[in-house]
Amino acid sequence: MGPEFTYAYTAIRVRDLDRSVAFYSGVLGLKLQGRSRAPETKGEIAALASEGKEHVLELNWYAEDSPYAGPYGEGEELDHLAFQVDDLDRAMEYLEEQGYPEALRREGEDGVWTYVKDPDGIYIELFQAAG
Amino acid sequence: MGPEFTYAYTAIRVRDLDRSVAFYSGVLGLKLQGRSRAPETKGEIAALASEGKEHVLELNWYAEDSPYAGPYGEGEELDHLAFQVDDLDRAMEYLEEQGYPEALRREGEDGVWTYVKDPDGIYIELFQAAG
Repeated sequence: MGPEFTYAYTAIRVRDLDRSVAFYSGVLGLKLQGRSRAPETKGEIAALASEGKEHVLELNWYAEDSPYAGPYGEGEELDHLAFQVDDLDRAMEYLEEQGYPEALRREGEDGVWTYVKDPDGIYIELFQAAG
Repeated sequence: MGPEFTYAYTAIRVRDLDRSVAFYSGVLGLKLQGRSRAPETKGEIAALASEGKEHVLELNWYAEDSPYAGPYGEGEELDHLAFQVDDLDRAMEYLEEQGYPEALRREGEDGVWTYVKDPDGIYIELFQAAG
Protein backbone atom coordinates (compact mmCIF):
# COMPACT_ATOMS: atom_id res chain seq x y z
CA MET A 1 0.00 0.00 0.00
CA GLY A 2 1.25 3.45 -0.88
CA PRO A 3 1.59 6.45 1.43
CA GLU A 4 -1.40 8.68 2.14
CA PHE A 5 -1.89 11.84 0.13
CA THR A 6 -4.38 14.47 1.29
CA TYR A 7 -5.58 16.98 -1.28
CA ALA A 8 -5.21 20.19 0.72
CA TYR A 9 -4.60 23.22 -1.52
CA THR A 10 -5.60 24.47 -4.93
CA ALA A 11 -3.11 27.08 -6.10
CA ILE A 12 -3.90 29.49 -8.88
CA ARG A 13 -1.66 32.15 -10.33
CA VAL A 14 -2.85 35.75 -10.20
CA ARG A 15 -1.53 38.87 -11.88
CA ASP A 16 -2.57 41.34 -9.17
CA LEU A 17 -2.68 39.93 -5.66
CA ASP A 18 -4.68 42.78 -4.09
CA ARG A 19 -7.27 42.57 -6.84
CA SER A 20 -7.65 38.81 -6.46
CA VAL A 21 -7.77 38.92 -2.66
CA ALA A 22 -10.50 41.55 -3.00
CA PHE A 23 -12.49 39.26 -5.28
CA TYR A 24 -12.13 36.00 -3.37
CA SER A 25 -12.42 37.50 0.09
CA GLY A 26 -14.44 40.67 -0.51
CA VAL A 27 -16.89 39.36 -3.10
CA LEU A 28 -16.98 35.57 -2.57
CA GLY A 29 -16.48 35.84 1.19
CA LEU A 30 -13.55 33.48 1.71
CA LYS A 31 -11.54 34.16 4.85
CA LEU A 32 -7.98 35.35 4.37
CA GLN A 33 -5.83 33.00 6.43
CA GLY A 34 -2.54 34.67 5.70
CA ARG A 35 -0.41 36.50 3.22
CA SER A 36 3.33 36.05 2.89
CA ARG A 37 6.29 36.84 0.69
CA ALA A 38 8.12 33.90 -0.87
CA PRO A 39 11.71 35.06 -1.49
CA GLU A 40 12.63 31.80 -3.23
CA THR A 41 10.12 32.48 -6.01
CA LYS A 42 10.21 36.29 -5.82
CA GLY A 43 6.54 36.01 -5.16
CA GLU A 44 3.78 36.67 -2.73
CA ILE A 45 1.14 34.23 -1.62
CA ALA A 46 -2.30 34.57 -0.06
CA ALA A 47 -4.21 31.64 1.44
CA LEU A 48 -8.01 31.69 1.73
CA ALA A 49 -10.76 29.24 2.64
CA SER A 50 -14.51 29.27 2.96
CA GLU A 51 -15.83 29.64 6.50
CA GLY A 52 -15.64 26.30 8.29
CA LYS A 53 -13.95 24.54 5.37
CA GLU A 54 -10.44 23.12 5.30
CA HIS A 55 -9.56 23.29 1.63
CA VAL A 56 -7.31 26.24 0.84
CA LEU A 57 -7.37 28.40 -2.25
CA GLU A 58 -3.84 29.71 -2.63
CA LEU A 59 -3.26 32.81 -4.75
CA ASN A 60 0.25 32.97 -6.19
CA TRP A 61 1.69 36.19 -7.48
CA TYR A 62 5.17 36.32 -9.04
CA ALA A 63 7.30 39.41 -9.60
CA GLU A 64 8.23 40.15 -13.21
CA ASP A 65 11.78 38.92 -12.68
CA SER A 66 10.71 35.70 -10.97
CA PRO A 67 11.78 32.53 -12.79
CA TYR A 68 8.15 31.44 -12.40
CA ALA A 69 6.63 34.57 -13.90
CA GLY A 70 6.62 34.07 -17.67
CA PRO A 71 3.78 35.48 -19.75
CA TYR A 72 0.27 34.80 -18.46
CA GLY A 73 -1.33 32.66 -21.14
CA GLU A 74 -4.77 31.15 -21.07
CA GLY A 75 -4.58 27.38 -20.89
CA GLU A 76 -6.84 24.39 -20.49
CA GLU A 77 -5.55 22.74 -17.32
CA LEU A 78 -7.96 24.52 -15.00
CA ASP A 79 -11.54 24.08 -16.14
CA HIS A 80 -13.23 26.04 -13.35
CA LEU A 81 -13.59 26.58 -9.60
CA ALA A 82 -17.05 25.78 -8.25
CA PHE A 83 -18.88 27.51 -5.41
CA GLN A 84 -22.08 26.33 -3.82
CA VAL A 85 -24.78 28.90 -3.06
CA ASP A 86 -28.14 28.70 -1.37
CA ASP A 87 -29.97 30.80 -3.94
CA LEU A 88 -28.52 30.92 -7.43
CA ASP A 89 -30.63 33.85 -8.67
CA ARG A 90 -29.74 35.98 -5.67
CA ALA A 91 -26.06 35.06 -5.93
CA MET A 92 -25.96 35.99 -9.63
CA GLU A 93 -27.76 39.26 -8.98
CA TYR A 94 -25.22 40.11 -6.28
CA LEU A 95 -22.25 39.25 -8.51
CA GLU A 96 -23.69 41.37 -11.31
CA GLU A 97 -23.96 44.31 -8.89
CA GLN A 98 -20.33 43.73 -7.87
CA GLY A 99 -19.22 43.97 -11.48
CA TYR A 100 -19.07 40.26 -12.30
CA PRO A 101 -21.78 39.54 -14.87
CA GLU A 102 -22.77 36.07 -16.05
CA ALA A 103 -20.07 34.87 -18.44
CA LEU A 104 -21.55 31.51 -19.39
CA ARG A 105 -24.78 29.63 -18.79
CA ARG A 106 -25.31 25.95 -19.46
CA GLU A 107 -28.61 24.16 -19.19
CA GLY A 108 -28.88 20.41 -19.10
CA GLU A 109 -31.38 17.77 -18.10
CA ASP A 110 -30.08 17.88 -14.55
CA GLY A 111 -30.02 21.59 -13.93
CA VAL A 112 -28.58 24.96 -14.73
CA TRP A 113 -24.96 26.02 -14.33
CA THR A 114 -23.89 29.63 -14.36
CA TYR A 115 -20.42 31.09 -14.41
CA VAL A 116 -18.71 34.41 -13.85
CA LYS A 117 -15.04 35.11 -14.51
CA ASP A 118 -12.53 35.96 -11.78
CA PRO A 119 -10.20 38.96 -12.29
CA ASP A 120 -7.78 36.80 -14.29
CA GLY A 121 -10.45 35.22 -16.45
CA ILE A 122 -10.84 31.95 -14.54
CA TYR A 123 -14.36 30.52 -14.77
CA ILE A 124 -16.15 30.52 -11.43
CA GLU A 125 -19.11 28.16 -11.39
CA LEU A 126 -22.06 28.86 -9.12
CA PHE A 127 -24.34 25.96 -8.29
CA GLN A 128 -27.31 25.76 -6.02
CA ALA A 129 -27.50 23.10 -3.34
CA ALA A 130 -30.11 20.51 -4.28
CA GLY A 131 -33.21 20.29 -2.12
CA MET B 1 -24.13 41.53 3.28
CA GLY B 2 -23.80 39.32 0.24
CA PRO B 3 -24.92 35.73 -0.13
CA GLU B 4 -22.71 32.88 1.08
CA PHE B 5 -20.39 31.14 -1.34
CA THR B 6 -18.78 27.84 -0.38
CA TYR B 7 -15.73 26.77 -2.34
CA ALA B 8 -16.63 23.16 -3.05
CA TYR B 9 -15.00 21.86 -6.24
CA THR B 10 -11.78 22.31 -8.18
CA ALA B 11 -12.32 21.22 -11.77
CA ILE B 12 -9.44 20.42 -14.07
CA ARG B 13 -9.59 19.39 -17.68
CA VAL B 14 -8.07 16.05 -18.63
CA ARG B 15 -7.30 14.54 -22.02
CA ASP B 16 -7.78 10.89 -21.04
CA LEU B 17 -10.27 10.30 -18.24
CA ASP B 18 -9.25 6.70 -17.49
CA ARG B 19 -5.61 7.72 -17.26
CA SER B 20 -6.34 10.61 -14.91
CA VAL B 21 -8.69 8.58 -12.72
CA ALA B 22 -5.91 5.96 -12.47
CA PHE B 23 -3.46 8.64 -11.33
CA TYR B 24 -5.63 10.48 -8.83
CA SER B 25 -7.36 7.42 -7.42
CA GLY B 26 -4.83 4.64 -8.06
CA VAL B 27 -1.64 6.54 -7.28
CA LEU B 28 -2.69 9.44 -5.02
CA GLY B 29 -5.44 7.42 -3.34
CA LEU B 30 -8.40 9.77 -3.74
CA LYS B 31 -11.77 8.03 -3.59
CA LEU B 32 -13.82 8.01 -6.78
CA GLN B 33 -17.22 9.39 -5.80
CA GLY B 34 -18.82 9.05 -9.19
CA ARG B 35 -18.40 9.20 -12.91
CA SER B 36 -21.03 10.50 -15.29
CA ARG B 37 -21.60 11.56 -18.86
CA ALA B 38 -22.53 15.20 -19.47
CA PRO B 39 -24.52 15.26 -22.73
CA GLU B 40 -24.75 19.06 -22.67
CA THR B 41 -20.96 19.38 -23.01
CA LYS B 42 -20.37 16.08 -24.88
CA GLY B 43 -18.15 15.26 -21.98
CA GLU B 44 -17.58 12.90 -19.11
CA ILE B 45 -16.86 13.86 -15.53
CA ALA B 46 -15.28 12.07 -12.59
CA ALA B 47 -15.46 13.37 -9.02
CA LEU B 48 -12.85 12.40 -6.42
CA ALA B 49 -11.94 13.42 -2.89
CA SER B 50 -9.38 12.46 -0.29
CA GLU B 51 -10.64 10.10 2.41
CA GLY B 52 -12.61 12.04 5.01
CA LYS B 53 -12.33 15.33 3.12
CA GLU B 54 -15.14 17.30 1.50
CA HIS B 55 -13.38 19.20 -1.26
CA VAL B 56 -13.92 17.58 -4.64
CA LEU B 57 -11.42 17.31 -7.46
CA GLU B 58 -13.49 17.13 -10.62
CA LEU B 59 -11.91 15.71 -13.77
CA ASN B 60 -13.52 17.01 -16.94
CA TRP B 61 -13.07 15.26 -20.25
CA TYR B 62 -14.59 16.65 -23.45
CA ALA B 63 -15.13 14.79 -26.72
CA GLU B 64 -13.33 16.17 -29.75
CA ASP B 65 -16.54 17.65 -31.13
CA SER B 66 -17.53 19.28 -27.85
CA PRO B 67 -17.81 23.07 -27.99
CA TYR B 68 -15.60 23.05 -24.87
CA ALA B 69 -12.86 20.86 -26.31
CA GLY B 70 -10.53 23.17 -28.23
CA PRO B 71 -6.80 22.45 -28.28
CA TYR B 72 -5.20 21.62 -24.92
CA GLY B 73 -2.73 24.44 -24.33
CA GLU B 74 -0.57 24.97 -21.29
CA GLY B 75 -1.59 28.09 -19.42
CA GLU B 76 -0.82 29.92 -16.24
CA GLU B 77 -4.16 30.00 -14.43
CA LEU B 78 -3.53 26.84 -12.43
CA ASP B 79 -0.26 27.03 -10.54
CA HIS B 80 -0.42 23.65 -8.84
CA LEU B 81 -2.47 21.23 -6.74
CA ALA B 82 -0.97 20.51 -3.31
CA PHE B 83 -1.12 17.24 -1.36
CA GLN B 84 -0.05 16.78 2.22
CA VAL B 85 1.96 13.68 3.10
CA ASP B 86 3.31 12.28 6.35
CA ASP B 87 6.75 11.45 5.01
CA LEU B 88 7.97 13.40 2.01
CA ASP B 89 10.92 11.13 1.18
CA ARG B 90 8.77 8.02 1.26
CA ALA B 91 6.05 9.69 -0.81
CA MET B 92 8.55 10.78 -3.46
CA GLU B 93 10.13 7.32 -3.59
CA TYR B 94 6.70 5.79 -4.09
CA LEU B 95 5.77 8.25 -6.85
CA GLU B 96 9.07 7.57 -8.61
CA GLU B 97 8.32 3.83 -8.52
CA GLN B 98 4.87 4.55 -9.99
CA GLY B 99 6.46 6.41 -12.89
CA TYR B 100 6.10 9.97 -11.59
CA PRO B 101 9.61 11.31 -10.94
CA GLU B 102 10.40 14.60 -9.23
CA ALA B 103 9.72 17.37 -11.74
CA LEU B 104 10.74 20.36 -9.64
CA ARG B 105 12.32 20.95 -6.26
CA ARG B 106 12.38 24.28 -4.45
CA GLU B 107 14.26 24.97 -1.28
CA GLY B 108 13.64 28.02 0.84
CA GLU B 109 14.24 29.22 4.35
CA ASP B 110 11.03 27.61 5.49
CA GLY B 111 11.38 24.21 3.94
CA VAL B 112 11.49 22.06 0.84
CA TRP B 113 8.81 21.70 -1.78
CA THR B 114 8.80 18.90 -4.31
CA TYR B 115 6.58 18.45 -7.33
CA VAL B 116 5.65 15.74 -9.77
CA LYS B 117 3.53 16.21 -12.88
CA ASP B 118 0.11 14.66 -13.36
CA PRO B 119 -0.65 12.87 -16.68
CA ASP B 120 -1.59 16.19 -18.32
CA GLY B 121 1.45 18.05 -17.03
CA ILE B 122 -0.17 19.77 -14.04
CA TYR B 123 2.25 20.36 -11.18
CA ILE B 124 1.40 18.31 -8.09
CA GLU B 125 3.07 19.66 -4.97
CA LEU B 126 3.89 17.33 -2.10
CA PHE B 127 4.42 18.85 1.30
CA GLN B 128 5.08 17.26 4.63
CA ALA B 129 2.96 18.11 7.62
CA ALA B 130 4.93 20.21 10.08
CA GLY B 131 5.78 18.58 13.38
